Amino acid sequence: MQSPSDIKDITRPERHICDALAAIGSATASSELSFMGIRNPHMRGPKALREGFAVAGPALTLQCMPKREDIYGAGEYDNPELQLHRHVLYPAQAGDMVVVDARADMESGIFGEMMLTFLAGRGGAGVVVDGCIRDSAKAKELDLGIWVNGVTPNYHAQTNIIPFAVNVPVACGNVLVMPGDIIIADDDGVVAVPVAMAEELIERCSHHVEWEEFSRFKLSEGGDLRRYYPLTPDADDEYRAWKAEQDAKG
Amino acid sequence: MQSPSDIKDITRPERHICDALAAIGSATASSELSFMGIRNPHMRGPKALREGFAVAGPALTLQCMPKREDIYGAGEYDNPELQLHRHVLYPAQAGDMVVVDARADMESGIFGEMMLTFLAGRGGAGVVVDGCIRDSAKAKELDLGIWVNGVTPNYHAQTNIIPFAVNVPVACGNVLVMPGDIIIADDDGVVAVPVAMAEELIERCSHHVEWEEFSRFKLSEGGDLRRYYPLTPDADDEYRAWKAEQDAKG
Amino acid sequence: MQSPSDIKDITRPERHICDALAAIGSATASSELSFMGIRNPHMRGPKALREGFAVAGPALTLQCMPKREDIYGAGEYDNPELQLHRHVLYPAQAGDMVVVDARADMESGIFGEMMLTFLAGRGGAGVVVDGCIRDSAKAKELDLGIWVNGVTPNYHAQTNIIPFAVNVPVACGNVLVMPGDIIIADDDGVVAVPVAMAEELIERCSHHVEWEEFSRFKLSEGGDLRRYYPLTPDADDEYRAWKAEQDAKG
Amino acid sequence: MQSPSDIKDITRPERHICDALAAIGSATASSELSFMGIRNPHMRGPKALREGFAVAGPALTLQCMPKREDIYGAGEYDNPELQLHRHVLYPAQAGDMVVVDARADMESGIFGEMMLTFLAGRGGAGVVVDGCIRDSAKAKELDLGIWVNGVTPNYHAQTNIIPFAVNVPVACGNVLVMPGDIIIADDDGVVAVPVAMAEELIERCSHHVEWEEFSRFKLSEGGDLRRYYPLTPDADDEYRAWKAEQDAKG
Amino acid sequence: MQSPSDIKDITRPERHICDALAAIGSATASSELSFMGIRNPHMRGPKALREGFAVAGPALTLQCMPKREDIYGAGEYDNPELQLHRHVLYPAQAGDMVVVDARADMESGIFGEMMLTFLAGRGGAGVVVDGCIRDSAKAKELDLGIWVNGVTPNYHAQTNIIPFAVNVPVACGNVLVMPGDIIIADDDGVVAVPVAMAEELIERCSHHVEWEEFSRFKLSEGGDLRRYYPLTPDADDEYRAWKAEQDAKG
Amino acid sequence: MQSPSDIKDITRPERHICDALAAIGSATASSELSFMGIRNPHMRGPKALREGFAVAGPALTLQCMPKREDIYGAGEYDNPELQLHRHVLYPAQAGDMVVVDARADMESGIFGEMMLTFLAGRGGAGVVVDGCIRDSAKAKELDLGIWVNGVTPNYHAQTNIIPFAVNVPVACGNVLVMPGDIIIADDDGVVAVPVAMAEELIERCSHHVEWEEFSRFKLSEGGDLRRYYPLTPDADDEYRAWKAEQDAKG
Repeated sequence: MQSPSDIKDITRPERHICDALAAIGSATASSELSFMGIRNPHMRGPKALREGFAVAGPALTLQCMPKREDIYGAGEYDNPELQLHRHVLYPAQAGDMVVVDARADMESGIFGEMMLTFLAGRGGAGVVVDGCIRDSAKAKELDLGIWVNGVTPNYHAQTNIIPFAVNVPVACGNVLVMPGDIIIADDDGVVAVPVAMAEELIERCSHHVEWEEFSRFKLSEGGDLRRYYPLTPDADDEYRAWKAEQDAKG
Repeated sequence: MQSPSDIKDITRPERHICDALAAIGSATASSELSFMGIRNPHMRGPKALREGFAVAGPALTLQCMPKREDIYGAGEYDNPELQLHRHVLYPAQAGDMVVVDARADMESGIFGEMMLTFLAGRGGAGVVVDGCIRDSAKAKELDLGIWVNGVTPNYHAQTNIIPFAVNVPVACGNVLVMPGDIIIADDDGVVAVPVAMAEELIERCSHHVEWEEFSRFKLSEGGDLRRYYPLTPDADDEYRAWKAEQDAKG
Repeated sequence: MQSPSDIKDITRPERHICDALAAIGSATASSELSFMGIRNPHMRGPKALREGFAVAGPALTLQCMPKREDIYGAGEYDNPELQLHRHVLYPAQAGDMVVVDARADMESGIFGEMMLTFLAGRGGAGVVVDGCIRDSAKAKELDLGIWVNGVTPNYHAQTNIIPFAVNVPVACGNVLVMPGDIIIADDDGVVAVPVAMAEELIERCSHHVEWEEFSRFKLSEGGDLRRYYPLTPDADDEYRAWKAEQDAKG
Repeated sequence: MQSPSDIKDITRPERHICDALAAIGSATASSELSFMGIRNPHMRGPKALREGFAVAGPALTLQCMPKREDIYGAGEYDNPELQLHRHVLYPAQAGDMVVVDARADMESGIFGEMMLTFLAGRGGAGVVVDGCIRDSAKAKELDLGIWVNGVTPNYHAQTNIIPFAVNVPVACGNVLVMPGDIIIADDDGVVAVPVAMAEELIERCSHHVEWEEFSRFKLSEGGDLRRYYPLTPDADDEYRAWKAEQDAKG
Repeated sequence: MQSPSDIKDITRPERHICDALAAIGSATASSELSFMGIRNPHMRGPKALREGFAVAGPALTLQCMPKREDIYGAGEYDNPELQLHRHVLYPAQAGDMVVVDARADMESGIFGEMMLTFLAGRGGAGVVVDGCIRDSAKAKELDLGIWVNGVTPNYHAQTNIIPFAVNVPVACGNVLVMPGDIIIADDDGVVAVPVAMAEELIERCSHHVEWEEFSRFKLSEGGDLRRYYPLTPDADDEYRAWKAEQDAKG
Repeated sequence: MQSPSDIKDITRPERHICDALAAIGSATASSELSFMGIRNPHMRGPKALREGFAVAGPALTLQCMPKREDIYGAGEYDNPELQLHRHVLYPAQAGDMVVVDARADMESGIFGEMMLTFLAGRGGAGVVVDGCIRDSAKAKELDLGIWVNGVTPNYHAQTNIIPFAVNVPVACGNVLVMPGDIIIADDDGVVAVPVAMAEELIERCSHHVEWEEFSRFKLSEGGDLRRYYPLTPDADDEYRAWKAEQDAKG
């Protein structure tokens, strides 16, 4: 188990990068990353505990390991400072995402309401666990995005796993996350963006599909998918007329 | 992979048949079908994305297959008309159900919001996928029943599967569906009705349990299950008196 | 299959014990039980069908077994009194919990709305199934806590399992439950409390963390986790001052 | 947990019935039972540890349950007579089959070599566990059929389950087994025969397909499946001539 | 369900192509196919029932579907010619591989000994099922490669699935197989080679690593992996000397 | 991904410790470790590829991670020295065990025959993978114990995972292994012994059950389990007489 004194903080990207990625959203980011060579950046498992959050931020990471009683004993309860799941929260800054490799364990509640309240209090953007949290009723009331496989009343080290290291590479939902990678999370799920690819990703997604709103409107009225998505040249003319009208209405 | 030009439309039952089945609901239909010899018409996996829809309609089907890179390549993105998941939507009419055999894959979002908006725009009753859709936040706002195993940000052919054929027999949620079979879907899940059995099924379910409302009322007041469900002869007398009173009240 | 005449009622604890356990909640109970030697009292699988219920009560149990057609045949439908899933409900009293060992089967709806309405009508506190119920739309409207793995339109004995015995020891969600054990259920899930351990458990949980409200408040404001959870001596002084002020405001 | 003093022995069928069923084999028995109304008498999971055994005998049963530390404690090791997995072996007679409901647990070795040596010494026909045994190297050397899901070094109550009752109805490999039912086991797996159906099953299987040897011979030479399996009238004539010739050769 | 009269035979590659692929083996073929763009041609699940077979041949395919009692009824047993799993065998020629999409079902024995004896009698190279066969003891004695997920005593349509179509595209072990594709199978498992890629695959694998025997010999003696695999220039000199010596020994 | 230059060798225990543990075997070691507080030291998944090996040795470890294409690219094939699965083998000494955390992936063959031949050539005791190897036919011929979940033709980084770090803590089969821990492996499976507990474990297992051979002999003759396992005082007298006789025969 890592010594708390060996834990390093992460390097954070400029805030506008995370803001741009949050606006792009997980669906567009995942598709585009696949065209950039990352076959599947989507974490299998974690789902939004409460819908409606759409965030992006750098990853603080916590690695859990199978429990071994000679390594994680009573000492952790005598001295809370030995509990590593606390240490991944200490360096949290506004906009950070906490990513926990919980080994898909469904009988360990990595964080309870107090830990999550602290993270929300620090302005954390969210927490992603390929496992569970506990105290879910209270957790849902926080202004904090939470993506988990499920919930449980059990505490973090009660059954099969123990926190083992902080800000090391982890596998969460079968996706490799390096500390400081950017996590995009919304109602479609959670995507990890390698930090070195973030700017190119934003660039590629910036060719904003301005006609998308028009397409959606026409399709919702029963318009032909072949004509309106993508737009045919004729439909593009129609779009421009519509847009001019919209702009005129202003 | 099927050529788009080989796709056939389905034969649709008269609308009143679908209306009757929607009113019967999945629970009564599944039980009664089992007494008619269909052991388990319920699709395992698909759940209502948004609760409260209760629909029935003929099945347009889409078969997916494991991805093979020599078969489904870049061409599909140069020419959207080669994407077969579009083709299952083109013939959609009001009241139709789109059923997708997605092989229980959790990393493929078969449809995104534009496709689903088109289906809703055409009056489609719903979509059933034993896998995922994407753009779930927007999809939930549509007037369209959606039953899926989950959601994902990934696009339809990003990882493990590809659309392969339209309006062919498919297995969805471990139930065999022939194109044109009638799909009943509500909060309990999704049931496939072999179209040739639909009229008999409606007939068998038509012996409306008029006393059910009475039973529910009595049970909710603490009435004896043995007396009120099913009704004993005594309780039946009680029911008739109650009903007369109700009718008198008008 | 058990004969209905062999079914025994359970012994119920005094009501205040259940009330105390409901107030303690599943999360605190599970942790504390683990310190008392019960490694994992949490049932894997059952989730709240409708959130917000927090109950505790003695367990009436129903054991299901794999279906064997020579044992569970047409007779059950000619004579409802042979259906054992009715018999677990007959003895239900106000505050009771019905616990069903459904073998994690996802194609059997153990109870439908009439059965559940009866249980609610009797004042039952809840039902826990490591499998499914049916008629979920109506079931959600009842004043009854319901914890299930899922929902299905199928009836109880339609596919893989049959009710087999009532008020015998069962395994629900991989937890052994003896008839009369106390079940705590809320949004975090379901925990079984061995009835002989209930009073000690309450005693151990009674050292009420009065400062918890203070900690939550400070953490939500960005306070230091190391200072406020648990409280350092300095923070404890701060807490006492805060509490005095609160009391003064009264 | 059952008290050892409450354990009942089973009623055994006449030996010739078991002999007949062993000769019929699991494949023919399973098919024919399905035509008699038992949809699936085959236990999913247990495989022959060592191939070549083909046996049938009445079932002594052991039910395991999820471990609960207040119920199965240190006492079992102070007093071996409290260990119920011993008690299922005590009444074993020549030809008996021991069937263990191990809940598909892969981390519990229900029996070790000493227990299995005792069973072999008593003339037991075999043991079936939908879980594991331990000491597999030595177990394989015994003259005892062993069907298990796997092997493990762990002892019976080391992790997740405990022995709970003997000679009660159990579910093994998702098949319901009543104490005294007849178990057929061979290289294709394990089938449970409801004891009341055994004689009819034997009767139905007794129309021995005498021409099967002839068919196999012809097919192995490249004969037409349509002609030789089942035999066409022409092939039947051919068979009779072949048989006469075989008989003449003597 | 497909009508037997609609079944088409496959086009077979020249025999030398299959022979070359059998010699290459599944491991080299799978790696090389991945470099050619087929990410994963390996079927998950099917294992050699008896080790030591290493074959390759064109695929005859059988598609199974979830059982639906209105489609697959008693008629199949009155008239064996309606059983489609027989029809995939009828066109079998020497060297053919029969590939069955059994939907990973573990309770359906697609073929029994008579069917397999016929296939062996016709010179079939092997059978691949992502599910089970039955009569495994006799099947193992045949001169026929058999790759299956497991064995069962149940017959092909006893429980969950039915044969549905012959020589259509199938998914076996999560790999898409077109009728006539070449199947390589050995102790490492089963790989599908798109028939249009077969010749290029053989070409790419033909750069025979002549020094591999030398490397294996040196490594088995404790030689340095860095020196002998792959060969360094120095080791290459050593190899040439060794080879000259070997050749001289003749 | 770890840089090869950062890899550290392990500290090895004295050879007699490993020899003693190999003699004790996985079954006795696992039970005794559980009494020493390690609830479950058994790795779930890995099975002996070829039976009959019984070894123990210190663990060299390899951690795999989910594949990420920006991290593990073509460079590894241009320069084999970048392939970390080679680096876990380089430091191998006689008696060492190589333990691979392969994340239970069934489509990655971590080692092929050349790598395994090298390990055998260095006198390695065995390899444990909670995943697969390839070239299994040749691998089985080596004088090397191999415990794996299965085999595959795919190469190590073909599909889902990549080698990521060497001689770091890993989770193999849901057991935490620290580099240098002692691995016991035989036909019952694989057990990890925390190196600091090895001597106490040996001590506790040294009270050799001398009468075990006598018990086995008596049980195999039909002796009473209650009398001979464990030995009653009477049976102990019998044992002493038997032993004296055996010794006299000498």
